[in-house]
Amino acid sequence: MITHAPCGIPYYVGGIVGDVSMLKTYAPSEFSKGRNIDVHVGSRVTGIDLGSRTLKVEESGSTARYEWDRLILATGAKPSIPHVDGVDLKGVFTVRLPDGARDLRDGIGAAGTVAVIGGGYIGLEMADAARSLGKRVLLFEAMDHVLPTTVDPDVAAIVHDELSANGVELHLSEPLLRIEGNGSVERVVTGGGNYRADAVVLAVGVRPDSDLATGIGLRMGETGAVYANEYMEASEPDVYVAGDIAETVDIVTGKRVWVPLAPPANKMGQVAGANSVTARSLKFPGVTGTAITKVFGYYVGRTGLNDEQAKANGFDFESKLVKTRSAAEYYARYETIHVKLTVERRSGRILGGQIVSRDKIAAGYLDMMAVLVERGLTIDDLFFSDLSYSPATAPVWHPVITAARVLSHGRL
Amino acid sequence: MITHAPCGIPYYVGGIVGDVSMLKTYAPSEFSKGRNIDVHVGSRVTGIDLGSRTLKVEESGSTARYEWDRLILATGAKPSIPHVDGVDLKGVFTVRLPDGARDLRDGIGAAGTVAVIGGGYIGLEMADAARSLGKRVLLFEAMDHVLPTTVDPDVAAIVHDELSANGVELHLSEPLLRIEGNGSVERVVTGGGNYRADAVVLAVGVRPDSDLATGIGLRMGETGAVYANEYMEASEPDVYVAGDIAETVDIVTGKRVWVPLAPPANKMGQVAGANSVTARSLKFPGVTGTAITKVFGYYVGRTGLNDEQAKANGFDFESKLVKTRSAAEYYARYETIHVKLTVERRSGRILGGQIVSRDKIAAGYLDMMAVLVERGLTIDDLFFSDLSYSPATAPVWHPVITAARVLSHGRL
Repeated sequence: MITHAPCGIPYYVGGIVGDVSMLKTYAPSEFSKGRNIDVHVGSRVTGIDLGSRTLKVEESGSTARYEWDRLILATGAKPSIPHVDGVDLKGVFTVRLPDGARDLRDGIGAAGTVAVIGGGYIGLEMADAARSLGKRVLLFEAMDHVLPTTVDPDVAAIVHDELSANGVELHLSEPLLRIEGNGSVERVVTGGGNYRADAVVLAVGVRPDSDLATGIGLRMGETGAVYANEYMEASEPDVYVAGDIAETVDIVTGKRVWVPLAPPANKMGQVAGANSVTARSLKFPGVTGTAITKVFGYYVGRTGLNDEQAKANGFDFESKLVKTRSAAEYYARYETIHVKLTVERRSGRILGGQIVSRDKIAAGYLDMMAVLVERGLTIDDLFFSDLSYSPATAPVWHPVITAARVLSHGRL
Repeated sequence: MITHAPCGIPYYVGGIVGDVSMLKTYAPSEFSKGRNIDVHVGSRVTGIDLGSRTLKVEESGSTARYEWDRLILATGAKPSIPHVDGVDLKGVFTVRLPDGARDLRDGIGAAGTVAVIGGGYIGLEMADAARSLGKRVLLFEAMDHVLPTTVDPDVAAIVHDELSANGVELHLSEPLLRIEGNGSVERVVTGGGNYRADAVVLAVGVRPDSDLATGIGLRMGETGAVYANEYMEASEPDVYVAGDIAETVDIVTGKRVWVPLAPPANKMGQVAGANSVTARSLKFPGVTGTAITKVFGYYVGRTGLNDEQAKANGFDFESKLVKTRSAAEYYARYETIHVKLTVERRSGRILGGQIVSRDKIAAGYLDMMAVLVERGLTIDDLFFSDLSYSPATAPVWHPVITAARVLSHGRL
């Protein structure tokens, strides 16, 4: 299997994706025929020799050796498994590969009560999917709000309401202590109590699948992912890394970060691939950590630094969560749009943006905020951006500009 | 009446806006009480004296004189009236002020067949409104495609299909020759034929309402609107202009342009107001001509230069209209998104973007493209922008990035 889409698994479980085969973007034959790429599936690389530039591969029951001139490691990430008892019980799932998705769907489908461990993107999406199947859903998050590393508490509070309104039983500040059962899951024990459950989804994050990389002594970055420079070159000559295995740079802070999300992963692949053919022909500039998800009716997204991150990075900042709307005041059909900007106080530079709305336009506004943040633009730049208006699409003062105006304290 | 919203009139006619009073954002009392601004309504300025810095005003049946230290002219725009016979007949309407909107709605409501003259934003919106009332609608555009000065023919073609699918009888390349009738409208005669109609909506554009400005000898700009510099200062000391009366600069070409749209008008007002109190405290940087409308199910927008404008401005450019989607490939619920980028060939600089989709996210993408264009960013900058992805909101290769990739000819 190649080019699988793990992000789609919750939607397969929830029934929006009809068949698991749809989560594989390309068949191997499309790569071999269409692109003249020799694809090996069911093949496990068991050794890499940097000196002789060879690979040892277990495939079709025997060991093959292949030579290479340039090596690209793109082994991705794998779900973190909490170090607690019971994670091996039947009925405990992670969300990883399409080939495991059928079991996951069957397991959720057979359960009456589903416990989701972790209130990150995957956890929220799995809670949504399980509710859409009519399951009782308990969501446990160790921190005091969902999406804890990505959005601020005030933004998360809007999501909390949406989860509750849709019947998710939300348990915040409840770390998982153990899973109990006789062969299969019966109970989840957290810092807050003891809950009956028939299935458990572990969604506490991912970690780089870096065994091969460490095996050849590639330098690990400070984030725990594999170090790469802006050309996606690893620490050994002619070795590149790309995707969820690789560390990169946060454009706002300049610090090393690990952001295992599909869009940077794909671009890193393009950069590593291009540079492995024509050295240093493309540069990967880093990320702003832009991410979005749909939680029941809400689109929730973020880019750049939230307040917590701005504080941790020593910025003198201010921020404001404003409530605007997705159409002119007099236009009958609209949704509320919540926009939060985090801004450096002295310069007015936009450090980050967060957005929540039932209107999907929020995703487009988020993309615009990503560009503003990446380019180091200010609230004045934003105010004067020639953004679009029609009564059906926005108020005459654009929602994101309204946030900038509030932060200008009457100046704009 | 103050702070009226002419953009809302088509939606009042179509019934999305319930009452015409909703098209007035503020009552005069809100300005006088809330902001300590002395608002005069029903008052006509009949003379401005630059020497003595006074105004002559007809109000309440007599003539008043007021002194001023700074003067801001914001007299706006008014509909252009074609120079043809019959425009004064009963049943011929323009789209201008809320106070005329009730007559317009009644006129359209009483008509069996409505002829809309002009395929710009207002014309399309009025055609949509009249169809929603069940009227037979004939739309006449003198050029060979709708939105002729704003989008390219390939983008307009998508709109043509939508108009036809919704029962609008589209007549392209048919300039209005005259309107005929005995007291009230009976027929519209165009370059293409003779059509029965009960009501006619003239939507052939607007022109600056600059009588007061010319009366005091303010310099007119090359566009026919009133000249203003980046501080919104007119050509006479302490006189400012703002809004649809004022000319500005196109950020892409550096040329003087007149773009009578609400977002720049409001920002010009902020700039002129601030500078009239604290000289040169704010600068209006110009526009990229970002505009959007909803035509039946489609959102259609544009920013920067289209192909025709790029050509007219001597750019060596290329462009591509790509067809992508508003969700991951495997995600069942999606709409088609058509994105067109116009790019300077050598530099890869994005000169303009056009977008059409039934998904409102198009409006957000348009805003992002506006920022890209304003900042002189390239397709490489766009490719590496950390734009958002989730299966519910975008393909993993973002629609606008896909357009950039196509224009990179395989490099990105």
